[in-house]
Amino acid sequence: MTTQPLRFGLIGTGRIGQVHAASMAADPDTTLAWVCDPFVEGARAVADRFGGTVTDDASAVFASGEVDAVLIASPTATHVDLIAAAIEAGIPALCEKPIDLDIARVDALLPTVRSSGVPIALGFNRRFDPAFASVRARVAAGEIGDLEHLSIVSRDPAAPPAAYIAVSGGIFRDMTIHDLDMARFFLPDIVEVSAMGSTVFDPGARQHGDFDTAVTTLRASSGAIVSISNSRHSAIGYDQRLEAFGPRGILQVANAPTSLVSLSTATVVEGRPPYQDFFLERYAEAYAAELREFVRLVRGEPSTSPTFEDGRAALLLADAAQRSATEHVAVAVELG
Amino acid sequence: MTTQPLRFGLIGTGRIGQVHAASMAADPDTTLAWVCDPFVEGARAVADRFGGTVTDDASAVFASGEVDAVLIASPTATHVDLIAAAIEAGIPALCEKPIDLDIARVDALLPTVRSSGVPIALGFNRRFDPAFASVRARVAAGEIGDLEHLSIVSRDPAAPPAAYIAVSGGIFRDMTIHDLDMARFFLPDIVEVSAMGSTVFDPGARQHGDFDTAVTTLRASSGAIVSISNSRHSAIGYDQRLEAFGPRGILQVANAPTSLVSLSTATVVEGRPPYQDFFLERYAEAYAAELREFVRLVRGEPSTSPTFEDGRAALLLADAAQRSATEHVAVAVELG
Amino acid sequence: MTTQPLRFGLIGTGRIGQVHAASMAADPDTTLAWVCDPFVEGARAVADRFGGTVTDDASAVFASGEVDAVLIASPTATHVDLIAAAIEAGIPALCEKPIDLDIARVDALLPTVRSSGVPIALGFNRRFDPAFASVRARVAAGEIGDLEHLSIVSRDPAAPPAAYIAVSGGIFRDMTIHDLDMARFFLPDIVEVSAMGSTVFDPGARQHGDFDTAVTTLRASSGAIVSISNSRHSAIGYDQRLEAFGPRGILQVANAPTSLVSLSTATVVEGRPPYQDFFLERYAEAYAAELREFVRLVRGEPSTSPTFEDGRAALLLADAAQRSATEHVAVAVELG
Amino acid sequence: MTTQPLRFGLIGTGRIGQVHAASMAADPDTTLAWVCDPFVEGARAVADRFGGTVTDDASAVFASGEVDAVLIASPTATHVDLIAAAIEAGIPALCEKPIDLDIARVDALLPTVRSSGVPIALGFNRRFDPAFASVRARVAAGEIGDLEHLSIVSRDPAAPPAAYIAVSGGIFRDMTIHDLDMARFFLPDIVEVSAMGSTVFDPGARQHGDFDTAVTTLRASSGAIVSISNSRHSAIGYDQRLEAFGPRGILQVANAPTSLVSLSTATVVEGRPPYQDFFLERYAEAYAAELREFVRLVRGEPSTSPTFEDGRAALLLADAAQRSATEHVAVAVELG
Repeated sequence: MTTQPLRFGLIGTGRIGQVHAASMAADPDTTLAWVCDPFVEGARAVADRFGGTVTDDASAVFASGEVDAVLIASPTATHVDLIAAAIEAGIPALCEKPIDLDIARVDALLPTVRSSGVPIALGFNRRFDPAFASVRARVAAGEIGDLEHLSIVSRDPAAPPAAYIAVSGGIFRDMTIHDLDMARFFLPDIVEVSAMGSTVFDPGARQHGDFDTAVTTLRASSGAIVSISNSRHSAIGYDQRLEAFGPRGILQVANAPTSLVSLSTATVVEGRPPYQDFFLERYAEAYAAELREFVRLVRGEPSTSPTFEDGRAALLLADAAQRSATEHVAVAVELG
Repeated sequence: MTTQPLRFGLIGTGRIGQVHAASMAADPDTTLAWVCDPFVEGARAVADRFGGTVTDDASAVFASGEVDAVLIASPTATHVDLIAAAIEAGIPALCEKPIDLDIARVDALLPTVRSSGVPIALGFNRRFDPAFASVRARVAAGEIGDLEHLSIVSRDPAAPPAAYIAVSGGIFRDMTIHDLDMARFFLPDIVEVSAMGSTVFDPGARQHGDFDTAVTTLRASSGAIVSISNSRHSAIGYDQRLEAFGPRGILQVANAPTSLVSLSTATVVEGRPPYQDFFLERYAEAYAAELREFVRLVRGEPSTSPTFEDGRAALLLADAAQRSATEHVAVAVELG
Repeated sequence: MTTQPLRFGLIGTGRIGQVHAASMAADPDTTLAWVCDPFVEGARAVADRFGGTVTDDASAVFASGEVDAVLIASPTATHVDLIAAAIEAGIPALCEKPIDLDIARVDALLPTVRSSGVPIALGFNRRFDPAFASVRARVAAGEIGDLEHLSIVSRDPAAPPAAYIAVSGGIFRDMTIHDLDMARFFLPDIVEVSAMGSTVFDPGARQHGDFDTAVTTLRASSGAIVSISNSRHSAIGYDQRLEAFGPRGILQVANAPTSLVSLSTATVVEGRPPYQDFFLERYAEAYAAELREFVRLVRGEPSTSPTFEDGRAALLLADAAQRSATEHVAVAVELG
Repeated sequence: MTTQPLRFGLIGTGRIGQVHAASMAADPDTTLAWVCDPFVEGARAVADRFGGTVTDDASAVFASGEVDAVLIASPTATHVDLIAAAIEAGIPALCEKPIDLDIARVDALLPTVRSSGVPIALGFNRRFDPAFASVRARVAAGEIGDLEHLSIVSRDPAAPPAAYIAVSGGIFRDMTIHDLDMARFFLPDIVEVSAMGSTVFDPGARQHGDFDTAVTTLRASSGAIVSISNSRHSAIGYDQRLEAFGPRGILQVANAPTSLVSLSTATVVEGRPPYQDFFLERYAEAYAAELREFVRLVRGEPSTSPTFEDGRAALLLADAAQRSATEHVAVAVELG
């Protein structure tokens, strides 16, 4: 019944799972009913803080009859099977990105998703950031005319461990994928991908044949061009900027300040403290909004939750970027 | 016992009382035990949302034996009696500013406060704003050298109703008092006050012989000068800025943006959305921090809660400003 | 004949005289015909660079028959006599501020100036700064509604030598006078002056009973209030800001950057190089515009050159500020 | 003799030729001796203002024996022959970019340039912009560590006439070429070029098979990546920004403001007037500095004037970008 809080099963209690648990506890429309992690101590710690029955077995969550939806925040390799299980159980799922690193596995699941009617949403949290969402809405309202160039800067504060890089699927599938979805948030119909990657500072990337620095260029069917600049490190803190250029002007999203204070001295004027450190701070509001929007999707209300197809499209673009960067060609894509 | 949440009695459930009720509910160190308002429906609405026993009689709160502290958010005229009752009951109190509009009543209570040993704190919330507190700490750390000039801009979004003006005690006691305390947050020992007031736009102020625009200048015993600029209205939203000038530089607090987005067009570049609307948004963090600091005071831990004497000093300065603006003289003050 | 370049006699070849000489050389509407300084080597150096006949005797300039106007940039004590001499010779004069440190001497000259019909202009260069002039024009056009508060920050990079302070007439007549004129540029009819001064860092000011830090508050007949903040030093460079507040918004003039470059690092973001050093850089455009406007005055064209009366009004306000700061009273003034 | 002003022959008196003529007149180290344009009225207008002997025949300039250097500001198609003539006459030349639209013609001249010893410089004026030059110097000094990503935004205010597009050589050779040189100013050894172009708004570009919007990505031998964003139009005025990213931080060049004034209202805060309109305003200082540096080159002093080889390298990169955008491949280049 839709006016009761939605009972959630949380699968995966790592850093991002904990964020979602806190959101569920804070949102009067949601409760945390089950908490699952093969590392059961992690699940227990979350349940102690935010409530819920603990298990190390995801199938127990689906079988419990006590969850209205699941949030899948487990390792990427488990996503496809968990989504399949959710569909089997008829339970809507919000799954963290990416669906999988292998497009073949994603495509294999696609018909099931399409035919099932079970709501499956993807965790592209940045779509729910108030600043990005506002720029998109203002662009859509024609404030700068037809979008001609979209520029996204996205740099993490520090490179992940080499062991993470080894299984990450590479910078495009692991990191750029968020920006590729952001590109599609503004321009869904991307038709061409070109990418260039370099390895200039990170031993982990070098060891595993990955890039630590990448620039990706996309063309939309409208002719608009998207530029994405990525780096695995950033001295200034989490660097998350966006700029939409059109015939009537430019809308920009600046980095998020941590203070209203600036200092001017004989050597530097108007200097401000560094930006927010990383995604948990920068996108705190976005995670909460993402959850609210998924609740609307589950309840059959109008919702802008990113879909399984959005997740698949982002992976297709990441694959194309990887190929472009490796083979030095531009890659035509068909997302339809 | 100090590790239990502090049980609060909230007296007064208007706008600011509701803010404190929400803070108490959100802070694991506090609970809302009793809620009091002569307008008992207001108290009940707060209790329904955040818990607590409802009453329309403050003496019931003090007699309940169920509160470890009270928060006084009732009309100004009731503050002195309620503080006296709290002291009588041996219950620490956090009282909204100002203590009273009549310094004689404040002075009459002073010996009782001093001799009682019951912690009495004043609700000068802005001291707890992260930006102002950071500038003060950086000034204290010598980052700009000895403070020579402090400039405070403080303008409300819109003039209050004429009926409010009638009983407000005038702009200096009602509005500037916050800025006078902010001045003392940086420079406690103010020795001279000069003020100029004008009535340029507000019919309510004109009707009741009040000013709608005022500039107050203070001198500290160190020789440092403070400038305070007030207006009862502000088209750009709540205008709350501060600038500390010293021999080595300037620390500035900017207005709080509501968005990271800016727009550049053919007519205006780098334009941003308006600032936060008013104090509930601008000082949300400060109210929570103020409560935490008062809890520390009640628990006998080191605390920076503003004291009854701080409240008295601000009122003395407001009285001096009022006299200066009316009599066109600078007024020497002794806060000691 | 008005289409020929105006032939100037320059009296005084110190720092500011040299600025004017360069302006005259660069402006096709003016030429430097005579250069006068009792320190004749100074005059010769200027003439070598920009042309003109050299003399150490101002009366030779007036008697030469070769100048259409004089620019008086000699020490303040000589201004009244030189203006009188210019009027006697029927030669228009642009005189640096202040007219004199003694209002009695200014008043004594006033009837002569008024009856003579010889154009006498005062060198309040800041009126010609594009930023200040733009704000004034936009205020006059109603962009922010009726002006309610004008805030001027004016700080020199470093205190002058003690010997200069000794003969300067004090901070109000020497330094604030520029800001007092700026106040009158926006609000000509000032009716009340209140000032507070402190001596917090400068031994020279202390030695000569002057202030190094001052805040001046003015009231206009409209009720609008003006705040002026002065300091004899400024670590960040020449600090020259202005802010006009009205019911519809705020117009601000920022300090002048020296570069388009900013640096963001792990400790400071968006830090920029210091501001322009002092008035020669900051007001370079203003000096040239001031000269052009005076040429228009001399030629009988519509001109906004500040008048002898403007110079007198600024001195009256400075005197009132000095008295207010010393006697701790607000001072009513009548500029009419 | 090097202490005399350098006597210049100016060939071409269009918009950019006039800028150089004014620079020559203003710089005490240079004089304008000859002015040449087949449209002799243009040459005469320049000579009337800034001096010099007028001719419609460039060979007369070289034969005059009265010029120490030439500045070639004639149409692109004439550059190669004029440089050849200058070398033949043993007269140093500063030639506007590009050398030619056909790399074969440039390469044919290369051996002559190399063996002649006659100083030939290219007019990449942006290298002399104080902001860009400052960032480059600070990067070179290690302020942000090794450069990892350089981002250049370069947009003209409005598309040129279709007739200009027809003979321009395309956006990469005509417009991007400046940015390609800027990339090489920071990272001379570019090894790979990838570009994407679109035609989204300009009928002239569409008519002539050109792009109006382009994104170019370069890789340097160090692995650093460069992103260039171009558009043939820009509502906000001339959009010229640069951002250098390294492991220790970011150096940014902002657009050039036209005023120190900002306006805050109920709908937009901190809005500023539009940026400088186009290159004549934005790069006024750069043109003068470019000329001074060329004088140093001619006099055999240490000079940073861009060379013929720099001009050739930029054209090679533009050709590679054109090919990349057309054939959808990344293009390896060898500039050595």
